[in-house]
Amino acid sequence: MRCDKALGSDNYSGIHPVILEAITAANVGHVHGYGDDDFSAAAVEDFRKEFGEGVEVFFVFNGTGCNVTALAAMLRPYEGIVCADCAHINVAETGAPERILSAKLMPCPSTDAKLTVADVETQLAGLGNPHAVQPAVLSLSQATELGTVYSPEELRELTDFAHDKGMLVHMDGARISNAAAALGVSLREAATGVDVLSFGGTKNGLMCGEAIVFLNPALAENFFMIRKQCNQLPSKMRFISAQFSAFLKDELWRSSAQQANDMAALLAKEAATVPGIEIIAPVESNQVFAKLPAEHIEALQERMFFYVWNEKEGSVRWVCSFDTTAEEIHSFVKDMRRIITGS
Amino acid sequence: MRCDKALGSDNYSGIHPVILEAITAANVGHVHGYGDDDFSAAAVEDFRKEFGEGVEVFFVFNGTGCNVTALAAMLRPYEGIVCADCAHINVAETGAPERILSAKLMPCPSTDAKLTVADVETQLAGLGNPHAVQPAVLSLSQATELGTVYSPEELRELTDFAHDKGMLVHMDGARISNAAAALGVSLREAATGVDVLSFGGTKNGLMCGEAIVFLNPALAENFFMIRKQCNQLPSKMRFISAQFSAFLKDELWRSSAQQANDMAALLAKEAATVPGIEIIAPVESNQVFAKLPAEHIEALQERMFFYVWNEKEGSVRWVCSFDTTAEEIHSFVKDMRRIITGS
Amino acid sequence: MRCDKALGSDNYSGIHPVILEAITAANVGHVHGYGDDDFSAAAVEDFRKEFGEGVEVFFVFNGTGCNVTALAAMLRPYEGIVCADCAHINVAETGAPERILSAKLMPCPSTDAKLTVADVETQLAGLGNPHAVQPAVLSLSQATELGTVYSPEELRELTDFAHDKGMLVHMDGARISNAAAALGVSLREAATGVDVLSFGGTKNGLMCGEAIVFLNPALAENFFMIRKQCNQLPSKMRFISAQFSAFLKDELWRSSAQQANDMAALLAKEAATVPGIEIIAPVESNQVFAKLPAEHIEALQERMFFYVWNEKEGSVRWVCSFDTTAEEIHSFVKDMRRIITGS
Amino acid sequence: MRCDKALGSDNYSGIHPVILEAITAANVGHVHGYGDDDFSAAAVEDFRKEFGEGVEVFFVFNGTGCNVTALAAMLRPYEGIVCADCAHINVAETGAPERILSAKLMPCPSTDAKLTVADVETQLAGLGNPHAVQPAVLSLSQATELGTVYSPEELRELTDFAHDKGMLVHMDGARISNAAAALGVSLREAATGVDVLSFGGTKNGLMCGEAIVFLNPALAENFFMIRKQCNQLPSKMRFISAQFSAFLKDELWRSSAQQANDMAALLAKEAATVPGIEIIAPVESNQVFAKLPAEHIEALQERMFFYVWNEKEGSVRWVCSFDTTAEEIHSFVKDMRRIITGS
Repeated sequence: MRCDKALGSDNYSGIHPVILEAITAANVGHVHGYGDDDFSAAAVEDFRKEFGEGVEVFFVFNGTGCNVTALAAMLRPYEGIVCADCAHINVAETGAPERILSAKLMPCPSTDAKLTVADVETQLAGLGNPHAVQPAVLSLSQATELGTVYSPEELRELTDFAHDKGMLVHMDGARISNAAAALGVSLREAATGVDVLSFGGTKNGLMCGEAIVFLNPALAENFFMIRKQCNQLPSKMRFISAQFSAFLKDELWRSSAQQANDMAALLAKEAATVPGIEIIAPVESNQVFAKLPAEHIEALQERMFFYVWNEKEGSVRWVCSFDTTAEEIHSFVKDMRRIITGS
Repeated sequence: MRCDKALGSDNYSGIHPVILEAITAANVGHVHGYGDDDFSAAAVEDFRKEFGEGVEVFFVFNGTGCNVTALAAMLRPYEGIVCADCAHINVAETGAPERILSAKLMPCPSTDAKLTVADVETQLAGLGNPHAVQPAVLSLSQATELGTVYSPEELRELTDFAHDKGMLVHMDGARISNAAAALGVSLREAATGVDVLSFGGTKNGLMCGEAIVFLNPALAENFFMIRKQCNQLPSKMRFISAQFSAFLKDELWRSSAQQANDMAALLAKEAATVPGIEIIAPVESNQVFAKLPAEHIEALQERMFFYVWNEKEGSVRWVCSFDTTAEEIHSFVKDMRRIITGS
Repeated sequence: MRCDKALGSDNYSGIHPVILEAITAANVGHVHGYGDDDFSAAAVEDFRKEFGEGVEVFFVFNGTGCNVTALAAMLRPYEGIVCADCAHINVAETGAPERILSAKLMPCPSTDAKLTVADVETQLAGLGNPHAVQPAVLSLSQATELGTVYSPEELRELTDFAHDKGMLVHMDGARISNAAAALGVSLREAATGVDVLSFGGTKNGLMCGEAIVFLNPALAENFFMIRKQCNQLPSKMRFISAQFSAFLKDELWRSSAQQANDMAALLAKEAATVPGIEIIAPVESNQVFAKLPAEHIEALQERMFFYVWNEKEGSVRWVCSFDTTAEEIHSFVKDMRRIITGS
Repeated sequence: MRCDKALGSDNYSGIHPVILEAITAANVGHVHGYGDDDFSAAAVEDFRKEFGEGVEVFFVFNGTGCNVTALAAMLRPYEGIVCADCAHINVAETGAPERILSAKLMPCPSTDAKLTVADVETQLAGLGNPHAVQPAVLSLSQATELGTVYSPEELRELTDFAHDKGMLVHMDGARISNAAAALGVSLREAATGVDVLSFGGTKNGLMCGEAIVFLNPALAENFFMIRKQCNQLPSKMRFISAQFSAFLKDELWRSSAQQANDMAALLAKEAATVPGIEIIAPVESNQVFAKLPAEHIEALQERMFFYVWNEKEGSVRWVCSFDTTAEEIHSFVKDMRRIITGS
């Protein structure tokens, strides 16, 4: 089961060496718990440099917890969350949103995992009808679960529409670094129009750590308590905070994400030259979706682990990480060619 | 706010060097996420050596999450949790148990934070009455929130009683290492009669990490999903698991806890010699509760941070950690004497 | 706003005179509360005559409460409910299922509001994947929200399929009387293969009252407590129970439902002869869906109140009740003809 | 089990004849559902005459539902409810508040079931501490579960104190009629200082029906939806509303409650003359608590059913209803004397 390198997920990778150094450097003496320490204060300031002076920032443990806890600040009990049907909150969190928020998710079918205004509108019929859950939050994934990316203009249109309807906007930014790197924009621009951002760290080189960024700081009222209630208050907070300071310093987030994105592009380009392999979705960030000859999938997984995405259609997902190298990609493609074509 | 050493809490300390080494050593290559890796398999085996071959073990992030998630496996919706009124789950988790479990906590007044059978009986009037919440889980803290410790015999009596009533037993073992070290027994004995144990790591030298040990493994059914729902499934699990393997190896847990306990005993003994200081609770593990002259508390906190426990009665709490040294204690007591007596 | 007769909903009608008599007759002396009385015992026996000796029956207040409370007995927290996208639980209960059950609803697109095995299969991808909510209950509405009816054979196929997948089957039988009357079968047959039935009374002549029938009685364990927790335990239970005894006696449920069904058939047949009116769905029970000329809708509503169903497509819903008469239908159709054609 | 008259509970009685007439009178024609009808509009106005023009009123089914739904409008998730330890919400609702509100109940020991400012203060230690549930609602029962009654002056002191602490005040007024009758004041005065009132009907002659009166109308925002979510929205609302109009007309509530109170006073006075019977609590409304010779309790229950209150102390509870008569009381006391003294 142990594997040296893999394309299984960006959480198969370990800790970026610079991040690990930051953990080590923070391991001195005693400091107050729960975020009342200098490392945490500094990390919040680092986020304000990226997102604006007025934002409020809270650190948490993991992606599911980050999304659920962020949404907990945005919802009243009779309100629901409009999202893509393939959204992580809808299909990959074992119902944590429903369990902890007691809220309805209102999934829309989507193209390439990206929502359009028309998609969102399909879930708004109940607005103003007191017998129906009120759609109150629009949740967008950036990058999406299919690796696609919303441009700032697309976000502007969607978020303006949502705000016009009286809705708030949440962004699941587990891979926002990859999106911003792909777009060549700032993190702030990659979250255009968003009220509350789940900012990802773990998938891009942290040991563990996500941040909730309240771009709309009024929503942060009493959030310290909401975070604690949702099991997401780290006691030795400095070790999360220090990771984030290192992550934001000198745009480590961008170079790490860029490497993963570049390797995905390389993999897509090279793999497409192998007879029998078809790239089936636009490669916009660090994920590649491909169709492989079914009879060879198992042998290929043994070479370099990855997941079958859709068994019926024979598609697979390859995810590149900050530590994926061109050498590994070339070597893997070479092996794929050999295994599939027998040459 | 930054302080070199403190008596604020055992989560004011950092990472034990051996634990940090284990994190570093685990940072090689790619491995599967969510616990399906060799580090995690090894750590589970390490726990089985301590607690028995049949136990099931799940790693989580933090203490509140550990308690809530463990209890989620033990309760049906109309059931409640009997605990001491000063239990962490009752007074220090911002209602996370109520929010996530939707369950009633049934607190009993207690002596020295330890429950007796008679205490528990005060909450059992509703047993069998369908208009009342059914007391179904007894939750005990080991060591307690006042630093006291249940002996294996006391646990046997309490847990036999609970089981006779058809109840399950949960243990909040955030400081079970300190309890086992104080008692001079194994971890298993310190959890005598328990069904599900919240096993603490963070307060005794981990960066972050707690374990849920199902001594009654039947209760672990589908627990992977319950853990995910409760926001407590680490994706890069190996870094939690590796910490625990180091923690259990050569009884690092015991030597760390013993040091904290010894320093608490030393502090209590020495402080008691200072005029105006009164030790107000038995010192059985790594916490000391004392009354100080109110007018000197602030000056003493500046010297070495600690919390006021009960403002009205003028009591304070001192908590020792794995890295507290005799030198620090002697120096602090010396300063206390000087500040209080002016000499 | 007050209207003498209407086609707004079957809860616009009042109490069937025979039911009101039963309430009056039960108003003698004192009896135990919460169901421990002779009226309630008799009503349970009446249900057992319809559904089998082994069933367990619990009375509750209202339709939403009935569905939510029934489902509460069927689900663990990480499990979800597969239903039609237009199911009452999904679109017309303001999220009560999500709030009280903390569970995910997994809606499938459907034809004529009826589900097929293929529809249900679209929601089963997560079965066995611990990162996904486990589809555990299939909820079917009989009659459906569009007035269509499942035949016993259709139910057998669907419920066999669900049981094969390890799922339980819930039926929202708010209008099960109308379905059974339409099919010409017993109530038991109209709930073929069902584990737990929400049995409707209010829409067919009760003042208020629904029953939860556990055809699978093992699921009724501790249900008294679940019902109380869900705010659905009537204290003066005899007045609910007595209504149901009257409802079941001499098949009052069937004659009442038959009248409503017959009037819907009559309305559909007659309305179809009016130029500009189009019946747009099969009329299988007591509801008629029609397209009307948009410019006349308001005038028609003033004549006899009904709801616009889908503003965009210009469709309306007419619901007949136990007390709708042929005279009213003929008179209404006559008025529609006059208003629409001007003659 | 069937009994002609009893002292079991005030929900053992049936429907007051005037109330039943009102149900019958409302059974004409069709009206809109869910409260959008003339009966409901009139009943709301009737409440405004009692409580003030600005109040908002919502009708619901039952007492537990009424309390839970009212509290749902008053709480954020990290907030708790301070109440007497013997409060109905704390001990007699099978945890419905915890299940539906996911909130902590913070029970205080009390004298005669009535809270004082000092009692409430015991639960306020966590105010402002983000690791603790925030006490946000004070819930008072009027009359209390022991039949005692708060005077308007006592309420003023308690509610002023609560408001000063930033808390809201809820009143469980399941027996507010009995309290107002006992005090000889208006319903409004019996709820002095209250923000949201659970106004009881069922225990004083309704078939079923309670009202939530928002004396602080700002809290009623979106309450229609909260009520529906909590399973408490009657579809054929007119039959609840009409009962309340009859209940308020000519102070039927008062004469009914007065009769029950008077009979309790009579019973206490007469029973106290029987050797071996001791009245153990002040009789301020319609409940009497007494100690009886243990060996005679069963025989007495067969004569006229009542509940044992506390088995250990051998105490019983007698509850009088609107339809309890002096003749019944005299006859029962006579029988008690005979059974106990043998004469």
